Amino acid sequence: MPLSIADKLGTIRQALAKLNIDAFIQPRADEYLGEYVPKANERLKWLTGFTGSAGAAVVMAQRAAIFIDGRYTVQVRQQVDASLFEYQSLTDLPLADYLIQTLTAPSRVGVDARLHTLAWYQQTQGQLAKAGIELVALTTNPIDDAWLERPAMPSSPAILFSDELAGNTSLEKRELVGAKINKAGAQVALITALDSCAWLLNLRGRDIPCLPVLLGTGLLSANGNMRFFTDLTKLPSNIISHVGAGVEFYPEQQLHEHLIALNGQRLLADSHSANAASQLTAELAGAKLIDAMDPVALIKACKNPQELAGMRASHVRDGLAVSRFLAWLDSEVAAGRLYDEAQLADKLESFRKLDSQYLEPSFDTISAAGSNAAMCHYNHLNGTPATVPINSLYLVDSGAQYLDGTTDVTRTIAIGDVSAEHKQMVTLVLKGHIALDQAKFPKGTTGQQLDILARQYLWQYGYDYDHGTGHGVGHCLSVHEGPQRIGKNTNATPLMPGMVLSNEPGYYRDGQFGIRIENLVVVQESETLQGTERTMYEFAPLTLIPIDKRLLQTSLLTSSEITWLNHYHAKVFAAHASHLTGAELSWLTAATSPL
Amino acid sequence: MPLSIADKLGTIRQALAKLNIDAFIQPRADEYLGEYVPKANERLKWLTGFTGSAGAAVVMAQRAAIFIDGRYTVQVRQQVDASLFEYQSLTDLPLADYLIQTLTAPSRVGVDARLHTLAWYQQTQGQLAKAGIELVALTTNPIDDAWLERPAMPSSPAILFSDELAGNTSLEKRELVGAKINKAGAQVALITALDSCAWLLNLRGRDIPCLPVLLGTGLLSANGNMRFFTDLTKLPSNIISHVGAGVEFYPEQQLHEHLIALNGQRLLADSHSANAASQLTAELAGAKLIDAMDPVALIKACKNPQELAGMRASHVRDGLAVSRFLAWLDSEVAAGRLYDEAQLADKLESFRKLDSQYLEPSFDTISAAGSNAAMCHYNHLNGTPATVPINSLYLVDSGAQYLDGTTDVTRTIAIGDVSAEHKQMVTLVLKGHIALDQAKFPKGTTGQQLDILARQYLWQYGYDYDHGTGHGVGHCLSVHEGPQRIGKNTNATPLMPGMVLSNEPGYYRDGQFGIRIENLVVVQESETLQGTERTMYEFAPLTLIPIDKRLLQTSLLTSSEITWLNHYHAKVFAAHASHLTGAELSWLTAATSPL
Repeated sequence: MPLSIADKLGTIRQALAKLNIDAFIQPRADEYLGEYVPKANERLKWLTGFTGSAGAAVVMAQRAAIFIDGRYTVQVRQQVDASLFEYQSLTDLPLADYLIQTLTAPSRVGVDARLHTLAWYQQTQGQLAKAGIELVALTTNPIDDAWLERPAMPSSPAILFSDELAGNTSLEKRELVGAKINKAGAQVALITALDSCAWLLNLRGRDIPCLPVLLGTGLLSANGNMRFFTDLTKLPSNIISHVGAGVEFYPEQQLHEHLIALNGQRLLADSHSANAASQLTAELAGAKLIDAMDPVALIKACKNPQELAGMRASHVRDGLAVSRFLAWLDSEVAAGRLYDEAQLADKLESFRKLDSQYLEPSFDTISAAGSNAAMCHYNHLNGTPATVPINSLYLVDSGAQYLDGTTDVTRTIAIGDVSAEHKQMVTLVLKGHIALDQAKFPKGTTGQQLDILARQYLWQYGYDYDHGTGHGVGHCLSVHEGPQRIGKNTNATPLMPGMVLSNEPGYYRDGQFGIRIENLVVVQESETLQGTERTMYEFAPLTLIPIDKRLLQTSLLTSSEITWLNHYHAKVFAAHASHLTGAELSWLTAATSPL
Repeated sequence: MPLSIADKLGTIRQALAKLNIDAFIQPRADEYLGEYVPKANERLKWLTGFTGSAGAAVVMAQRAAIFIDGRYTVQVRQQVDASLFEYQSLTDLPLADYLIQTLTAPSRVGVDARLHTLAWYQQTQGQLAKAGIELVALTTNPIDDAWLERPAMPSSPAILFSDELAGNTSLEKRELVGAKINKAGAQVALITALDSCAWLLNLRGRDIPCLPVLLGTGLLSANGNMRFFTDLTKLPSNIISHVGAGVEFYPEQQLHEHLIALNGQRLLADSHSANAASQLTAELAGAKLIDAMDPVALIKACKNPQELAGMRASHVRDGLAVSRFLAWLDSEVAAGRLYDEAQLADKLESFRKLDSQYLEPSFDTISAAGSNAAMCHYNHLNGTPATVPINSLYLVDSGAQYLDGTTDVTRTIAIGDVSAEHKQMVTLVLKGHIALDQAKFPKGTTGQQLDILARQYLWQYGYDYDHGTGHGVGHCLSVHEGPQRIGKNTNATPLMPGMVLSNEPGYYRDGQFGIRIENLVVVQESETLQGTERTMYEFAPLTLIPIDKRLLQTSLLTSSEITWLNHYHAKVFAAHASHLTGAELSWLTAATSPL
């Protein structure tokens, strides 16, 4: 019989007492510090029962706490026993402040330094030190010792990603990034982002949900040579010929000794994304750390022509699948049949699954009925899925991993009759979406500069939304990739040709409804502005799915906005019409007819 | 007979040899590090002949260089002898890089640490140290020893700024800022910005051009007590009753010993605006430096109701003066009389001088004919003023210091017939100006976020401008004040009610023409958006001067933009009509009639 949460807490507390540790921090992350973790690394869930995508627990001798953000205030109450863990808000009371308030100096706080960035580790260490509290990097995680029924690590084989799909060979990529490492004054770089490693080696995998990568860590030298530390049993026999010259594979356990052997070398590592343990190990062994952004990130973000071709092709097929889902949904509503959020999410995926290159969702589908959509990050799997009521708005934000590309789209759909207020708000959101889509901007412009274009019409009425306007998207890789971003917060990365971003303004009325209209776009040199004084960029659309015209208050749209919508819908029709017949074709024809 | 530049260089070189210094840096700034310096502190001009507002000279045994930015590439050739100083670009080759390239390690570079910020000093020290070059803070400036005919420091008396004009007593202000110093964990703050000291003490002065302040430095304690180090002979006998309890005045020379007496105290200073010498003195004496923004800046930027009333009143009178100038200019052009840039600038000032509260220009007037206007920071006094030709654009950017407020306005004026291209570009600039003026934005929004509103229409055609869109403006103080700003560059200061900013998009075609349309606006809570979900702000206009309708391509304007212009012109007419008669009133009526 598995241990109860109370038993687990008891075991951990005994371990901490032996180590003379007063508090232990267990975050959601594993050593790769990405958004998703394999089941074997769901330590926070094991310890607390909490399944959210972000959070941390603190265990002390007499009390324990779970820290979550605003997205999970309801969910934490359902999943975590309040008699064992007090609920704390990460935003209202940062972890370090909580520890300073709760512990009496001198105290010792233990962490598994693999599960935190070096930047977090050093900042927290400094904050605690001022209060007489020592941050201690433990040599083993007490949860790992106590977790008897721990699942095996994933064992699915590596996928060799062809040079045709990738556009460049691994060797070309490694030499390009290697030159950048050299320019940064380093001899070798620690590559911990799983998507960076996958991109560098033209490998994919199925080790974690929603991100088609292989678990592992890379050491890339300035000359382009790379050591990759991973589960060797996942690699096919022809791996060496696939990755080309200069790649060596080692068991993941050997990373430690290779880090120690960096003694005297200059090691580039991203202190904001790479785990503290690996950097501290190298530094202690005598390596000089050079703190710089992952040298893969920017190059990977600017997709090459083959990657873009794959993104375009996968978006056409994805658009067809989602359009068919929307056609089905309309016909079911017309027939008086209503479904719950889980049924709709599953039905949507069933259309995508028909594609031979489909791998999996690119993130957990947000299928949100009525007022549930007012929660930006709603997940119907965290409770009982609600039935989408008649005369309401249904919001569905979903995406797919295909072998040739990654998609992410949100549509807000009229279920029956909707109110004038619904229409006004959808129209204001769409006006922002169109303004951002139509922007032309000089080379050097950041997404931060463009953000207001998507918000300006909501602002004219006193509304706003509390999330970014656009995130980067990878190529059969992470649906959330940097360094580019469109949002209010500081982001100094200029948008560059080949970058893929989402354009997703929204509006959320607490307890009532939620709206979001999201397309993916790619940055390109402006086709119409050639030979102008400045080099101008613009967005080209990737997503090809009808936007629900039934939700628009046409009087709020300018003629230029109506032209944009009609032009967009003509493209959608042209992309899909030849693949549809009968009722589906009729639906597409109506859904994309000019306003 | 005054020394020649060659003689001066020789004298300085002898002094450096005695000090065992290999290179000496003389910037344009004095110890107050502001935009303007009194004649007695124009050391760079004395040494090189250069009169630009920014630049630096480097003197070495065998060579010397003058560093300037893009604004002064022409002027430096006219003013500085190329046989004595090589010309260098501050942007292409930063000072530290030049020194590293030019000197052989080990070397010693001398600076007058009063003339540089601590941030610059520390950064440069670090860069040079890596190359084996020592940065040495000299105890005296060799120029001061060699400058025999140095002008006297200004001696104009202090102006007691009434509580009615200031809106708050000095005591109220000092207690408010003192609380902020306390909150920052400091016991005392070094206030070096001249406008911050003037604002704190409700004093004005005539010590330097364009900025109505008294030279001096403040030490403000957390309890609101203040020591001000200045030329005591400028202070009237009733000064103590004017400034209220808790202020002590000392001769400027005594600042040094008071800084030394800070031993053991926590001293707040802004390393990016306060001079290195004072902070290094305090630190060496045992004070702990707390690096934070000038605690006066943000409070001063948010004008109180009395200050705003003064800003509004002065803008009405200033608008009348500038409107009369524009009426005169049109009648002269109609009569076939053309003038040069200097004559026009003087004529404009003559209208402002009629106001009893007028003090001086708030900056050097930019009066630019035709292609000269393509240089953003053109100054007709740096060469032979050009005559404004018929059938061209005339750009005039000017402002005034009045006892009750500070103004800054740019108008672009049709002189005779203008081309369709002129009209297109003026209209695109105006569209941006209108979009920014009409913005409504939630509390927390920065000027950086709004910047694109002013550029978006130029961008749609492939144009842009290479300057910020808006700067803060003081109240009978600096025409350029922070911390708020509207521009592309990172600025994290949210716009707050009472802040005054310029809205000044432009367009510059090299060698042909320049356009800028600038009004000052004040941030206020939105009058139309009350009780909305978010607290919304908007801009209210201060400047009331016609915008030249003859320059507009009406077909490019939306009906909402035409409404904006007509509404603005109706306000301008209402403000000035009752003060004008005859031809001037006819001119105003026509200039403000609806489009």
